[in-house]
Amino acid sequence: MKIRIKRTYFIEQLNDVLKAISPRTALPILNGIKLEATEETLVLTGSDSEISIEITIPTEVNNETVLEIESSGSVVLSARFFTDVIKKLSGDFVELDTNAQFLTHIRAGKSNFNLSGNDPNQYPLLPEVNNESSIIIPSSVLKTIINETNFAVSPSETRPVLTGVNWQFLDNEIKFTATDSHRLALRKLTDKPNSVEISNAIIPGKALGELNKIIDDKEDDVEVNFSQNQVLFKYGNMRFISRLLEGNYPDTSRLFPENYETKLTVNNSEFLHAIDRVSLLAREGGNNAIKMTIENGKVELSSNSPEIGNVEEDVNIGGLEGESLQISFNSKYMMDALRAVPDEEVAIEFFGTMKPFTIQSSNSYDVIQLILPIRTY
Amino acid sequence: MKIRIKRTYFIEQLNDVLKAISPRTALPILNGIKLEATEETLVLTGSDSEISIEITIPTEVNNETVLEIESSGSVVLSARFFTDVIKKLSGDFVELDTNAQFLTHIRAGKSNFNLSGNDPNQYPLLPEVNNESSIIIPSSVLKTIINETNFAVSPSETRPVLTGVNWQFLDNEIKFTATDSHRLALRKLTDKPNSVEISNAIIPGKALGELNKIIDDKEDDVEVNFSQNQVLFKYGNMRFISRLLEGNYPDTSRLFPENYETKLTVNNSEFLHAIDRVSLLAREGGNNAIKMTIENGKVELSSNSPEIGNVEEDVNIGGLEGESLQISFNSKYMMDALRAVPDEEVAIEFFGTMKPFTIQSSNSYDVIQLILPIRTY
Repeated sequence: MKIRIKRTYFIEQLNDVLKAISPRTALPILNGIKLEATEETLVLTGSDSEISIEITIPTEVNNETVLEIESSGSVVLSARFFTDVIKKLSGDFVELDTNAQFLTHIRAGKSNFNLSGNDPNQYPLLPEVNNESSIIIPSSVLKTIINETNFAVSPSETRPVLTGVNWQFLDNEIKFTATDSHRLALRKLTDKPNSVEISNAIIPGKALGELNKIIDDKEDDVEVNFSQNQVLFKYGNMRFISRLLEGNYPDTSRLFPENYETKLTVNNSEFLHAIDRVSLLAREGGNNAIKMTIENGKVELSSNSPEIGNVEEDVNIGGLEGESLQISFNSKYMMDALRAVPDEEVAIEFFGTMKPFTIQSSNSYDVIQLILPIRTY
Repeated sequence: MKIRIKRTYFIEQLNDVLKAISPRTALPILNGIKLEATEETLVLTGSDSEISIEITIPTEVNNETVLEIESSGSVVLSARFFTDVIKKLSGDFVELDTNAQFLTHIRAGKSNFNLSGNDPNQYPLLPEVNNESSIIIPSSVLKTIINETNFAVSPSETRPVLTGVNWQFLDNEIKFTATDSHRLALRKLTDKPNSVEISNAIIPGKALGELNKIIDDKEDDVEVNFSQNQVLFKYGNMRFISRLLEGNYPDTSRLFPENYETKLTVNNSEFLHAIDRVSLLAREGGNNAIKMTIENGKVELSSNSPEIGNVEEDVNIGGLEGESLQISFNSKYMMDALRAVPDEEVAIEFFGTMKPFTIQSSNSYDVIQLILPIRTY
């Protein structure tokens, strides 16, 4: 393999592929990045065996030559080290020349590196994902969906299905659910013609987090293909593959109560700051619990930690209906939920001291956040 | 104590005082910040028993009221937590009201915090430093001196004096020396009328590092006072006190050789980038060693790590005189030294393969960096 490639463009692509590569992999070759030059393209592949990313670099981008291929071939090079070298080189273009023993000569400016490479035949094959069952989502919408749900997946492997976001395909709607069993985020995508033949797929939160770092907040289409146990996202010149989580996702529909007892409307960022202040003490106290008291048309947040002190904060109210209430909740969950509601005005509906409560935009019902209260007595 | 203070201004002062406070202190009260309101000022004190910072806040700054004192008094409050609270509050001003049990009521906007405080009489007294033996240095010059030397102090407590910078007071000159015994930084401040009665003082590198974060790159005067075992820096409304290191600083004057065998002149940032590239491989190899070969009017950097590969880089030469040379050195020390020479053109003088070499500006001899080579055979 002998190629010449535009350095700045190459660095961008390498940075994306790196997102699939974990420093703690069981298979040493997966510390590497696979480079494969054909007659017309250079394909970069990175994988940690759960997530795989494949990027195909053409010879021209926007009518500008980014890649010249003198001879085809392939090699696996230490991903992070190779990327560091390319980043620190000088010059606009960098030359790569791999010999039969996979020793790769890198030349740019006045620098000459020789890096030991590995046999690409030892690199595992990526899983096949057919494109029979697929949907198209604009990248900006996909980013929003991830931002509104992914934070709520469980960090614990105790119930593996909860570490993923459940994509549920209904007739004219897709529902995205994430829960760690203490709080839940639900996003709906409506009016989506459904060409998917499966009823649901559980995508690991970690994969969605990495995907979110790569895709742009634009209207570019992302094609999502599902197979039995893999999902493939096609985005521009990238193929992003993740395994799906196996198992049954819990039925969370029964969690949502009807007919609130108390409804509070607040300004999102003002309320977030108030929670943030009160949570300072709640955090020092150890359990993040803060108390909300709704009484006589007033809303007060408070927290108390015997050794440190206490705090009380009056909440600016946009609207208030229904019963008086005392409820305690985890302030971190509340802040996560408020950040995930994309609106300046939010409605919080309570169903009693011991029941889950919901947070959503006053204007849209596309996304709903649910939090279980903390029992304080 | 009952006061009202401008929040943004208060936060700046608290951030400075925090630099003296260590989360790992043996004396629990030193986790706190002491606030002491007199009739006209509020004095903030923080200390980790090695460094102490005292800031005096007046009632007016630039004809603007920043502090109103209703009643004097004092209290010690948990430094980090109190600062976090002040930062997250809303409103321009914050009110502090401490009762006889040191419970402190903090009010701003719609928030009311009550924090447990401690008895200020339990707070240790700061060391006394008389102002008989003092010098004045502009803050910008002091910053430069610290930047040019402090990186070279030893991180190891094996020889405690080497963890500090030696300030040596000669007749018309002050010499600042830092060394970890593998490399050395020497800065001279000339034409400085000497009113200091001691011959030298070893100031801990850690203290100088924290001081450097507080003082601005301006022409404001810093008054430096020395007593037997303390140094006091007075800067604006701040008093910064550090203990001095005890013991004899080694005589490093014999380290500097005369009459170079080889002299190389290079562009500082170009050379720094070249070293940085070659060091990539040197770092992976483990010992940071890179080799420099000067031969036939050419200069080459190289590094070799059997498992990973090798690198060679031609150096752009500004000027070259003297003998051929092969020398190995620690690339990190070279990069530190180059960053600490404030000039685009640097002269590197070599005295043979096994002798220390020096790096300095081509134009000024105020600062000289010295590095011991690595024996590679």
